Amino acid sequence: MTAEANLRIVLAARPHGRPTPADFRLERTAVPEPAEGQVLLKILYLSLDPYMRGRMDAAKSYAKPVEVGQVMEGGTVARVEKSRNPDFSEGDIVLSHSGWQGFALSDGAGLRKLDPKAAPVSTALGVLGMPGFTAYAGLLTIGRPKPGETVVVAAASGAVGSAVGQIARIKGARAVGIAGGAEKCRFVRDELGFDAVVDHRAPDFPEQLKAVCPDGIDVYFENVGGPVWDAVFPLLNEFARVPVCGLIAQYNKTDHAGADRLPVVMRAVLTRSLTIRGFIQREFADQRPAFHKEMADWIATGLVRYREDIVDGLENAPESFIGLLEGKNFGKLVVRVVG
Amino acid sequence: MTAEANLRIVLAARPHGRPTPADFRLERTAVPEPAEGQVLLKILYLSLDPYMRGRMDAAKSYAKPVEVGQVMEGGTVARVEKSRNPDFSEGDIVLSHSGWQGFALSDGAGLRKLDPKAAPVSTALGVLGMPGFTAYAGLLTIGRPKPGETVVVAAASGAVGSAVGQIARIKGARAVGIAGGAEKCRFVRDELGFDAVVDHRAPDFPEQLKAVCPDGIDVYFENVGGPVWDAVFPLLNEFARVPVCGLIAQYNKTDHAGADRLPVVMRAVLTRSLTIRGFIQREFADQRPAFHKEMADWIATGLVRYREDIVDGLENAPESFIGLLEGKNFGKLVVRVVG
Repeated sequence: MTAEANLRIVLAARPHGRPTPADFRLERTAVPEPAEGQVLLKILYLSLDPYMRGRMDAAKSYAKPVEVGQVMEGGTVARVEKSRNPDFSEGDIVLSHSGWQGFALSDGAGLRKLDPKAAPVSTALGVLGMPGFTAYAGLLTIGRPKPGETVVVAAASGAVGSAVGQIARIKGARAVGIAGGAEKCRFVRDELGFDAVVDHRAPDFPEQLKAVCPDGIDVYFENVGGPVWDAVFPLLNEFARVPVCGLIAQYNKTDHAGADRLPVVMRAVLTRSLTIRGFIQREFADQRPAFHKEMADWIATGLVRYREDIVDGLENAPESFIGLLEGKNFGKLVVRVVG
Repeated sequence: MTAEANLRIVLAARPHGRPTPADFRLERTAVPEPAEGQVLLKILYLSLDPYMRGRMDAAKSYAKPVEVGQVMEGGTVARVEKSRNPDFSEGDIVLSHSGWQGFALSDGAGLRKLDPKAAPVSTALGVLGMPGFTAYAGLLTIGRPKPGETVVVAAASGAVGSAVGQIARIKGARAVGIAGGAEKCRFVRDELGFDAVVDHRAPDFPEQLKAVCPDGIDVYFENVGGPVWDAVFPLLNEFARVPVCGLIAQYNKTDHAGADRLPVVMRAVLTRSLTIRGFIQREFADQRPAFHKEMADWIATGLVRYREDIVDGLENAPESFIGLLEGKNFGKLVVRVVG
């Protein structure tokens, strides 16, 4: 790759179940020139997030799918290389949604300037960005944990889960994390300070979860689905709240044979007065200023910690993304596009 | 039955699936004598409601089960026959929860005096009672219909459904009812004034429902479950609300073979930001005074109509209740215990 090439990764084919490297294609194009009013962005960091799996399918989700042949979408941190827009100067660092590529044009709409002195700019893709805000808005607006209540979250070492548990503790609730493997569990308990953590790979995972939730579960922040849901579900207390922001365990599933669990779940919704509420963080956009302020304070005072899993090189994005869907990352997964 | 016998119906056996007459037993006991502080109630009307099916099972629901050999529970309207409680006089008409029997003792706790001049006293078991309040609180607090939105409710000629649709219209929403058979559909449309009604027995019921919901469904007041849910589910709009107060279609089901519908429902919860919220009306007890006032006004001004299906004789309660679970009633089902 020369300085003049724009490396980009497009959707080559719609995956059936688990994505494979063949579903992505690396392309080289010319670096575009900004027109009047535009800026040329050089991408520094690309965020890899589970929701991107949904964009690879043709089915309508809350956003339209990526078309085959189109650049994969995604949040990015970029530097303004050239500016023909009076609102931006060369060298500005911005949050953008430029996708899986090295360069992008923008008319400035939707760009947010970042202060590199305030925090590492990659955090605008994680704890101070969309995943952190997903945790904040979903937990506080839908989950509404009260002091002493038990909050459970899976993928607890990940971008969303780690914030959910730490915010729950700030609000006086007990935080119980679920993670995969001893190393992640240790991190969740010892570094993030969760009250308890359970390894979902343990053969007796449901029993372990029950043991660390002696008073049941009042808030289950659902970001994985699958077997974790099956273990959590019997423990949900009357009036429990279940904000649903992701179902990573079922994104790659292609069939749903087996007993129909819906009637049992609906019966519990009825008899235990449960709330199950799906959401996308942008619904709560008016809370973003409060989030940015509170989360920056919590980080500064050590109340919230975070971990990034940084992968070098855009060409490694497909493999890293496939690994993300299997829980192979450890912390917020970010691709460093430019070293 | 002499004046001195207390006729009562006890749970004889826990039903497996659909209850049968053999699950109930008629007993005659002596009419009890009130102790100091108690009143003797003579039951005038007994309410029959779908929730009672749940009480017949041993499984924990939001209330504890009726034990085998115990009198079936239920809401009642009664006359005070003898009073040794200074708060009540002979002849007072009260709302009580005395169950399937002719006489009962009470210490006065939980009794509410009714004014027979204000409304037929049987309405305290229906439109002005628990079913009407279930409709009111669930629709307004969880469903929150906005003007122009589409509200769908099943069992639309029944005690809860008829109130849901009419309150939705009062709030400026479109009310779409689902009912079983031409006679009930006609009643829902022509007498209750719903904007549209669909017969769930029609072979093309899902297509008919879709046709009368051209803008999708914003609130689905869930009181039946089963095939109606399957027809409603694809039509739920983004941010739709689903208050769940009953699942009559699945109460008698004993197996749930077939495809697992839960993953598809959870995916829709996520991608369409749905809210599914179970509730029992007593959670909203602080709204009861407002309900009593508003509903009485709506009835007085003709904005809310209601229909009662009155069955004579306590001995007919089991058969009527079994029919209720199959939709054989037409309007709020009430047993006139004393003619």
